[in-house]
Amino acid sequence: MSSEKVLVLGSGNFGLCLADHLADAGSTVLLYSRSLEAVELMNKEHRNPKYLRDHLFSSNITAIGPEFPTKDVVSKMDVLLFAIPTQNLRKVLKDMSSLLDPDNHPLMIFVNKGIETDTQALTLEIIADECGTEIAKTSVFLSGPSFAKEIIKRQPTQVSVASLSITHADRAAEVFHQPWFRCYTNNDPIGVELCGAGKNVYALAAGVAAGLGFENNARAGLITRSLAEMTRVGVAFGASPITFLSLAGVGDLMLTCTSENSRNFTVGYRLGKGESLEHILETLGSVAEGVTTAKGYKKIIDKVGVQAPVANAVYSVLYEGAVIKDVVEGMLNRPRVVEHDLPLGRSPVDDLLSKLRLSTRPW
Amino acid sequence: MSSEKVLVLGSGNFGLCLADHLADAGSTVLLYSRSLEAVELMNKEHRNPKYLRDHLFSSNITAIGPEFPTKDVVSKMDVLLFAIPTQNLRKVLKDMSSLLDPDNHPLMIFVNKGIETDTQALTLEIIADECGTEIAKTSVFLSGPSFAKEIIKRQPTQVSVASLSITHADRAAEVFHQPWFRCYTNNDPIGVELCGAGKNVYALAAGVAAGLGFENNARAGLITRSLAEMTRVGVAFGASPITFLSLAGVGDLMLTCTSENSRNFTVGYRLGKGESLEHILETLGSVAEGVTTAKGYKKIIDKVGVQAPVANAVYSVLYEGAVIKDVVEGMLNRPRVVEHDLPLGRSPVDDLLSKLRLSTRPW
Repeated sequence: MSSEKVLVLGSGNFGLCLADHLADAGSTVLLYSRSLEAVELMNKEHRNPKYLRDHLFSSNITAIGPEFPTKDVVSKMDVLLFAIPTQNLRKVLKDMSSLLDPDNHPLMIFVNKGIETDTQALTLEIIADECGTEIAKTSVFLSGPSFAKEIIKRQPTQVSVASLSITHADRAAEVFHQPWFRCYTNNDPIGVELCGAGKNVYALAAGVAAGLGFENNARAGLITRSLAEMTRVGVAFGASPITFLSLAGVGDLMLTCTSENSRNFTVGYRLGKGESLEHILETLGSVAEGVTTAKGYKKIIDKVGVQAPVANAVYSVLYEGAVIKDVVEGMLNRPRVVEHDLPLGRSPVDDLLSKLRLSTRPW
Repeated sequence: MSSEKVLVLGSGNFGLCLADHLADAGSTVLLYSRSLEAVELMNKEHRNPKYLRDHLFSSNITAIGPEFPTKDVVSKMDVLLFAIPTQNLRKVLKDMSSLLDPDNHPLMIFVNKGIETDTQALTLEIIADECGTEIAKTSVFLSGPSFAKEIIKRQPTQVSVASLSITHADRAAEVFHQPWFRCYTNNDPIGVELCGAGKNVYALAAGVAAGLGFENNARAGLITRSLAEMTRVGVAFGASPITFLSLAGVGDLMLTCTSENSRNFTVGYRLGKGESLEHILETLGSVAEGVTTAKGYKKIIDKVGVQAPVANAVYSVLYEGAVIKDVVEGMLNRPRVVEHDLPLGRSPVDDLLSKLRLSTRPW
């Protein structure tokens, strides 16, 4: 039984369910929230006012906030768990950076997905920018098919736990691992991050196909061709193709593309049914990350210069006014190709690794 | 528009739907059936008495039989399409072999899945045994997520088309390819065959999990870990890991593991609900290939000597009287491992390739 001091930053769905999981498994959890109401309700009634509202959270959770945690609090932690949307992460890391002792800081674990839209930076790069290369090299990324509402029920869940430092991946896996929350260590955090970014874009495509009335063959075919495309983009970027077979890769892609619980899938589905994007986003009641990520992902695709018909189709429907019917017809009529054509050669990851002062790829 | 003379051998669900697809796309199709009733009904009313009964088949199909096709008929064909269960294939190929001119024979395409139980032979090996190595080297394997009842509706479907000879894979893809039936060529037929065999075993496991009430995280996690296992077994056997990312690999696995239309999934589901295997098989009304394949697949696993907890669990439930509850508990409590550990070194595929007088792997 692990018994760690963990500070969870971010109290959305995923931060909450992981805080609950860790606390339930014996860790002492501080949960930081910017909402005074959320802090008070957690400490008084072990509930959250907005997310997972029916759940009675573990009494091993103590909420703190709305002030940002102090240096004193941070220095006492074994683990910092960042469950913060990618677009807000840079700011939080900037604030956190000054509180960290570079020679003796808590293990840093990240569960956000997606790309920083303005810079197309991956989280690993944001960490390097804001906290320095040494912290980036030991940071850990946890990702996989994991709906929060199933995690709080202790439904069996399995995730990838990736880091450039396999020692740190192991350590993070040890913190989270339980029979009902199995952790698999992985040495390709860049591949894991690209999977997390791509999957929401491809979930939009899967949703459109379902909205148009396409059936099981089409769905499985589209998800598989999306995976081939994600792998091609990833390998061109410098990731290992094997990572796309992972829980963070095909596992999460499959979950996101086949579930009506997925917001991105839902946006696609409603587009396929003929609703306008504007109307869908106005009435969705929550954020669909894929709509934003499609922009950053498109920039990555253009940078590595590989074929990506599915992601490009999604982009053209979202941002270039393309008509879905024409786009689908165009895709079905594309020329016949070989199944996998993985690009080789120098890739953006080499720049990122040299920024991190690593001379070889650890995967 | 392709216009080929195709002889389809086997008139089960899959043979029928492919005959219909090819005929509809302009080919002249002979459909061989051992049932006089089926032959007569197809030629009179373009219907089948047993499978896809509501479908009016293309009038470009002429049924022949119940006598086996003659040498004269075979010699006029451009393509022979074998849609025959693996356990019956050796006998049919033995009969066919004497009708084939080794220097000028039709393109041979295979769509069966699974392993010959007694010998653990893959189809490629059965072909080599019965028709010689030259024919085996140019044979083509078509596989992917493709329910017959969706193919006859021209629902978009995508498949892998694999051969040791990429020229022949290309030729076969050209025969089948249409916007609604997209073909992706692939040079690893052994990997494609191992995917086709494994998926039915893993579908049993996915069914059990659903029967026990496990939800989305568990399902996606189990399918992904099954894929990792299938990849490990395949790579130990000598296949390319990339093949497991294919339509024949993860595509078909996903379809089979998530659909209540899948017989193997259904057997697993009913096992998970507590029914006995005996009772399920008595009342199923059709064959669940995974139940047989689990035996041959187990032998392959033992031969290559890699960890395969999911397939071994399925085998122990089917054939060793293991109690599902204990098996699941054992799996969830297995030690933590790294996500992908692909074995390297000499493997059974090298023996098969030397039998085919190939000195290097084409993939």
